[in-house]
Amino acid sequence: MSIMAKLYWDDFKVGELGEFGRMQVTAEDIKEFAAHYDPQPMHLDEQAARATLVGGLCASGWHTCAMMMRIVADGFLLDTASMGAPGVEEVRWLAPVRPGDELKVRATVRDKRASKSRPDLGFLDMFFEVLTAAGTCVMTVRTNLMLRRRAAADALPA
Amino acid sequence: MSIMAKLYWDDFKVGELGEFGRMQVTAEDIKEFAAHYDPQPMHLDEQAARATLVGGLCASGWHTCAMMMRIVADGFLLDTASMGAPGVEEVRWLAPVRPGDELKVRATVRDKRASKSRPDLGFLDMFFEVLTAAGTCVMTVRTNLMLRRRAAADALPA
Repeated sequence: MSIMAKLYWDDFKVGELGEFGRMQVTAEDIKEFAAHYDPQPMHLDEQAARATLVGGLCASGWHTCAMMMRIVADGFLLDTASMGAPGVEEVRWLAPVRPGDELKVRATVRDKRASKSRPDLGFLDMFFEVLTAAGTCVMTVRTNLMLRRRAAADALPA
Repeated sequence: MSIMAKLYWDDFKVGELGEFGRMQVTAEDIKEFAAHYDPQPMHLDEQAARATLVGGLCASGWHTCAMMMRIVADGFLLDTASMGAPGVEEVRWLAPVRPGDELKVRATVRDKRASKSRPDLGFLDMFFEVLTAAGTCVMTVRTNLMLRRRAAADALPA
């Protein structure tokens, strides 16, 4: 991995960053995630899911978070000098994610600020909207990403 | 599934609900989740992880969320008249989750309120602390769970 190839905190501007994806959601993926991590009837089995409030198989909300992460990673995060995230400010599960849905992520930089305690780091206040091909927003996530600052990289020994 | 066997919103009291788990974290699980959902070097490969800020393989934060969900599901949620959750209020990733860690979850009901718009539902304002066997808190999560109210179940036809 070349440090020079990466995007730094300095390279991001407040505003819409872009739309990334798409990821195809399958019944097999929904059930496999559920069997490992969220074995509730509406995520595990079509027939049991029909008897629930959502009326049919749908992805665990945490599965939707995980799929968003993959789209964001492939979309831009793996090309950045990312230092992770301290957490998540808010997740809103707005509509069921169904087999056959194709998910994409619209990423927006709401704000950016340098770290006060770590001059080599900066934060990006991100807003992610997970959208189906039909344009339904199924989830929103607010989180602060930590990225290395370009000045810190320039100061590295050659 | 017997409706009579379930715990309803009415059955929960504000205060600590209990500790649930444990779940063993393995390098294989960390890498498998990462390969699907979060392919960053510190989650994918021991050697690549040593070169990162966290200094060794650690679980994706979203993987820790998923493991917490499984512990909570097995611990009490599958025994309740759960109607899901509208989202998550806050996630804090406090320390790396490593291979060999044994995770448990301390669950606390911070508050409870009846739904204003749906008299058959109530909300539990939950605080989850994910702890290692050594007592390190690796993650906290605040979320509102929706549960059916007992009165609504009593009103169902026999």
